[in-house]
Amino acid sequence: MHSHMTGDSLDELRGELRGVNLELLELLSRRAELVERVRAVKQARGLPIHAPEREQAMLEELEARNPGPFPPATIRRLFAEIFRASVDLMERGKDEVLKVSRIAGRDDLVFRVKGELVGAGPVLIAGPCAVESEEQIEVAARELARLGVRFLRGGTFKPRSSPYAFQGLGELGLRLLEEAARRHGMVSVTEVTDTRAVELVARHADVLQVGARNMYNYDLLREVGRSGKPVILKRGLSATIDELLWAAEYIVAAGNVEVVLCERGIRTFERQTRNTLDVSAVALLRRMSFLPVIADVSHAAGRRDILAPLGRAALAAGASGLMVEVHPWPAVARSDSEQQLTPAELARFLDEVGWPHPAPRPVAVAGGT
Amino acid sequence: MHSHMTGDSLDELRGELRGVNLELLELLSRRAELVERVRAVKQARGLPIHAPEREQAMLEELEARNPGPFPPATIRRLFAEIFRASVDLMERGKDEVLKVSRIAGRDDLVFRVKGELVGAGPVLIAGPCAVESEEQIEVAARELARLGVRFLRGGTFKPRSSPYAFQGLGELGLRLLEEAARRHGMVSVTEVTDTRAVELVARHADVLQVGARNMYNYDLLREVGRSGKPVILKRGLSATIDELLWAAEYIVAAGNVEVVLCERGIRTFERQTRNTLDVSAVALLRRMSFLPVIADVSHAAGRRDILAPLGRAALAAGASGLMVEVHPWPAVARSDSEQQLTPAELARFLDEVGWPHPAPRPVAVAGGT
Amino acid sequence: MHSHMTGDSLDELRGELRGVNLELLELLSRRAELVERVRAVKQARGLPIHAPEREQAMLEELEARNPGPFPPATIRRLFAEIFRASVDLMERGKDEVLKVSRIAGRDDLVFRVKGELVGAGPVLIAGPCAVESEEQIEVAARELARLGVRFLRGGTFKPRSSPYAFQGLGELGLRLLEEAARRHGMVSVTEVTDTRAVELVARHADVLQVGARNMYNYDLLREVGRSGKPVILKRGLSATIDELLWAAEYIVAAGNVEVVLCERGIRTFERQTRNTLDVSAVALLRRMSFLPVIADVSHAAGRRDILAPLGRAALAAGASGLMVEVHPWPAVARSDSEQQLTPAELARFLDEVGWPHPAPRPVAVAGGT
Amino acid sequence: MHSHMTGDSLDELRGELRGVNLELLELLSRRAELVERVRAVKQARGLPIHAPEREQAMLEELEARNPGPFPPATIRRLFAEIFRASVDLMERGKDEVLKVSRIAGRDDLVFRVKGELVGAGPVLIAGPCAVESEEQIEVAARELARLGVRFLRGGTFKPRSSPYAFQGLGELGLRLLEEAARRHGMVSVTEVTDTRAVELVARHADVLQVGARNMYNYDLLREVGRSGKPVILKRGLSATIDELLWAAEYIVAAGNVEVVLCERGIRTFERQTRNTLDVSAVALLRRMSFLPVIADVSHAAGRRDILAPLGRAALAAGASGLMVEVHPWPAVARSDSEQQLTPAELARFLDEVGWPHPAPRPVAVAGGT
Repeated sequence: MHSHMTGDSLDELRGELRGVNLELLELLSRRAELVERVRAVKQARGLPIHAPEREQAMLEELEARNPGPFPPATIRRLFAEIFRASVDLMERGKDEVLKVSRIAGRDDLVFRVKGELVGAGPVLIAGPCAVESEEQIEVAARELARLGVRFLRGGTFKPRSSPYAFQGLGELGLRLLEEAARRHGMVSVTEVTDTRAVELVARHADVLQVGARNMYNYDLLREVGRSGKPVILKRGLSATIDELLWAAEYIVAAGNVEVVLCERGIRTFERQTRNTLDVSAVALLRRMSFLPVIADVSHAAGRRDILAPLGRAALAAGASGLMVEVHPWPAVARSDSEQQLTPAELARFLDEVGWPHPAPRPVAVAGGT
Repeated sequence: MHSHMTGDSLDELRGELRGVNLELLELLSRRAELVERVRAVKQARGLPIHAPEREQAMLEELEARNPGPFPPATIRRLFAEIFRASVDLMERGKDEVLKVSRIAGRDDLVFRVKGELVGAGPVLIAGPCAVESEEQIEVAARELARLGVRFLRGGTFKPRSSPYAFQGLGELGLRLLEEAARRHGMVSVTEVTDTRAVELVARHADVLQVGARNMYNYDLLREVGRSGKPVILKRGLSATIDELLWAAEYIVAAGNVEVVLCERGIRTFERQTRNTLDVSAVALLRRMSFLPVIADVSHAAGRRDILAPLGRAALAAGASGLMVEVHPWPAVARSDSEQQLTPAELARFLDEVGWPHPAPRPVAVAGGT
Repeated sequence: MHSHMTGDSLDELRGELRGVNLELLELLSRRAELVERVRAVKQARGLPIHAPEREQAMLEELEARNPGPFPPATIRRLFAEIFRASVDLMERGKDEVLKVSRIAGRDDLVFRVKGELVGAGPVLIAGPCAVESEEQIEVAARELARLGVRFLRGGTFKPRSSPYAFQGLGELGLRLLEEAARRHGMVSVTEVTDTRAVELVARHADVLQVGARNMYNYDLLREVGRSGKPVILKRGLSATIDELLWAAEYIVAAGNVEVVLCERGIRTFERQTRNTLDVSAVALLRRMSFLPVIADVSHAAGRRDILAPLGRAALAAGASGLMVEVHPWPAVARSDSEQQLTPAELARFLDEVGWPHPAPRPVAVAGGT
Repeated sequence: MHSHMTGDSLDELRGELRGVNLELLELLSRRAELVERVRAVKQARGLPIHAPEREQAMLEELEARNPGPFPPATIRRLFAEIFRASVDLMERGKDEVLKVSRIAGRDDLVFRVKGELVGAGPVLIAGPCAVESEEQIEVAARELARLGVRFLRGGTFKPRSSPYAFQGLGELGLRLLEEAARRHGMVSVTEVTDTRAVELVARHADVLQVGARNMYNYDLLREVGRSGKPVILKRGLSATIDELLWAAEYIVAAGNVEVVLCERGIRTFERQTRNTLDVSAVALLRRMSFLPVIADVSHAAGRRDILAPLGRAALAAGASGLMVEVHPWPAVARSDSEQQLTPAELARFLDEVGWPHPAPRPVAVAGGT
């Protein structure tokens, strides 16, 4: 080995290196083609793309057969990188068929609900965690309308951890919400949790919400996809960004493209907040999909004192709107009392977020019914 | 303040705290009695139960009179919680208790399904991820029965991340599973994902399964609770132990105590495994509840090579059984191909786990039907 | 019980309820006082505040002794709430002694390094992951200075997962960084990982950095606290917000208040990003402490395409600055090549973030020294 | 494309992929040989090894010639990785391998410390969280020796979240531990946190421990690798299994193969336990490495009531030993009081775990040396 070392010409060696690089390039491309064919077979059979154990075995074989001079650890690392690139390729292939994907050049989705634009300027969806009584939702709607809020949320079928906790007013709540929204010219938003209730809820509400706990409830996703109403789809407690997009795909595949993705915080080890607001998800969802993305800062934080910075951050990351829980009397709310704002606090929140003060609807007209 | 600091004994202080706790308990009970009497009066007069404005005023008085050291916000929060409990009490009487809890001295739940004991010695639930064809489930059942397995699992309504992936054979799958189980004298186990399908699935299957993705689907929990069939309830991807118990409470509260809790791995940052098997959950669930606890090692690991140590660990932590995915030909399985065992691999798994070799059912008899 | 129901006067009952409420208030306050004394004892002995097992036992006793009519689950919930309030009280007590805490009315910390303000307007800290050669750091510094960047970062002692990966140029790197910074009138920032190297690094660098991997390295924290140099302290990979503040307390307690907290993403289950940028942490750190908070968006994202929205979000949440990795030729960088920007990309990033275009230093003057 | 899709067999495609992988391996090795020759020439002529500009140009050519289907960015990334590996190779020769890996057929590491086997039958490491006084450690050692425990742990330099909490007795603690261990014929185990203290600690203790908070403290890892003492390396709070193995590699690469890996629970969202014991990590570490693996159940659980099931689970998953905190009087311990066992509780724990009752050392003889 020593003899040729001194005799080597740097230029010749560099030429040889270049040749090897080009051979590697060709081989990598051949590999990528094979990988695409594997993907096609796997996709047809519904098999998972990623096969860690197979990779592990292949890595072991390569390490064992490595003639050097790269140390085994380097061979392992390089091939792990090549495998990862292949999985990326396979999954990107997969992405290309997704209806929710942002195809190059595709504009953001913008749609109207009762005249209100979604996906254009930022929207604010506010209201109590749950509809509790006629007076409560009426006061909430009136105060919110006064602040220029167009979207009135209120839970009527509440998914609660305990079967003994307040589960919402059900159909009565739906009617109260519907009437309050109509009186104040607002768009009503409420959650649906049961496939059997989709039709009922869709009769009363303008926008259906699928909650974080039901993001993987594919039967429900299909059903709301057939409801003809726009859907706000919340990210599951520990759902990946890809899973959220797949869940949206269920709705869109069922015929309904008016889907709004909602980041609402993910579960982490951190105890100071109820969940961890994931602004990277907002940014990535905007990049990966053409659907509008909003952020529910109330559920993310679980506390009132950082709602404004979180709201600003979500908008700065690209969110097309915010969802905030507002209750006329939060302390006596029947759920989520820790995180609901009073209407006065919402006004301060909007100031702190720098929300453009929308002209409130003339109450006379809206309330004229 | 300094003088008593050094003098304070932790044990004495704890004794005093205990005393105060018991006084609080008594006072809360007195309060609850008054609340019940208020309810009776209101009911007799047809008055509404919930009076948010009155509560709001009382909270303000309490906050004003608070001598500390609890900050006012804490006093507000604690009393709001007490008021909420009172409203709950008024609305539903006083007969509810946490039915899934292990009350002191309460024995483990043991029940029978088609003669097979659950909750006594460890049970093994095995079978393919999905029922794919008559031959596949028949071969699976035959091979499993030969190994002494009594519980045959097989997905018929599959919740899949992609709407375009294989979603199971549906009702056909139910019938194939039912027949295979009957031919081999086995208990059939299958997942139900839609409230509307519970009745159908319960007609064909012996045990219903609620998957991890549906653990928070409370409507479904209530419905399976009314089905009259035992239920295997899987822990959600990032559900806390408390949330799993509350989910079980939904089923039990609906009238069905035959619930088996299933740990199946939680979502963490670790990439080598699909999920992280949480054996502490197995141990704690056994301590906190009298319901049987099993572990699904296939979904926890997501790879075959560590199933045996995980199975041993789960049993060592107190699991009353294991669930394992077994497919006659895993490589061509339509889902989860990386983690399913062949029947031969299952035999080796059982050896490595040290599973007591149960006498296989005489095939002639079982298949005679 | 039935007899008095009808005879009850609503007003009398309400009066009694009010009385019980006030008794509860007094008892809760007594309890809180006891809790404060427990805290004093625990603090003196360095005992942990939270005792979940003891609480569990107490809850079981209370549940067992509950005379009704509150159901046991309610008693459990109410007392869990009371216990939580007590732990909060104990921990708030603890907070009050922290030097890093934001005492009511305390202004944000602002300090100067070589004339540059930190903690006032947003600062930008940029530079390559590692100092690799004289030419590389010189080109980087020159380009950055041209863009108005005042803080030049560059790793010289690199903590790497593999002992065989490039570990930095060490002392040579320190000198190259120092000279490049001096030539362009910039403030140099570099990481120190070993207590024994603090003195050396402090001789050459203007600002010391403690990396995420060393946030719990308390010996190092004490040592940088004695170095006389400002310190950037990065949050550990899965450190809680409280732990980060405690780590800062180590530095401040050693005599150095010029500490900058750096959020750099936490470890979660999400795979699309290297880490999850936690903007709630930025908001809460600003609220809980008077120290400046910055965000390292490069390590949070681990990819270039969402750096701008993350930068905007961090600033919107209250960050006093950003850290970004910039390399003249990222593709051939010896570490972190995926996430480093070129100077041209940094210029675009600053535009997208809406960064105020600072007047670049006159190069002649800066280089003249 | 459609024609071959349906015709493709997964097994055939995988065979072809394997072939391409082996060709890639050969080509990479050829490239590495060329790189070594380049290095020799450069070294002989005193030229710098790294030529970033040349690499940048080659990357551009490769990107331009890329025929797909890998996207250009992937080609750039893969070759950048290959170039980086080449520079690494040039800088350090070819003698490195991943020393901690379980090479096919390699036996488990077994070694002796003061006559006690590690890595053979399960070992028990027990003792107080911290050495607090001569009497405390003496009583602990005596009671533990009586139960047959051979490894006495005790913290002397304690890493604590708060700078104001008890930090250990330091050098005094080291001497107390050393003497107690000698009197009872035990092996002493204690943590070292500072590179500057390694020599001191190694003079007094038989086994050095690197704590979870310092797993990424590579300077410390190198230093304990040179200490000549066996090392227990704890997994970081959220360290991946791969990162733990790399950390071990630092120690082994520094010349010390006597490393014991310690799983001690990872950080998750679950609140019932302090950490989540990851038994999959135990199983995988055993498979991936030949080093002994133990589990610290005390820190994993953070509570006493599930230590026995966790201990059983860890052993069942393949652990070669357990670490348990035992204190003569846990209630008054200066740290971790909630999770330390009394010696009597340890005896019960060992029974419940089914630990083989080792013959306790004759105290007279052991203490006589």
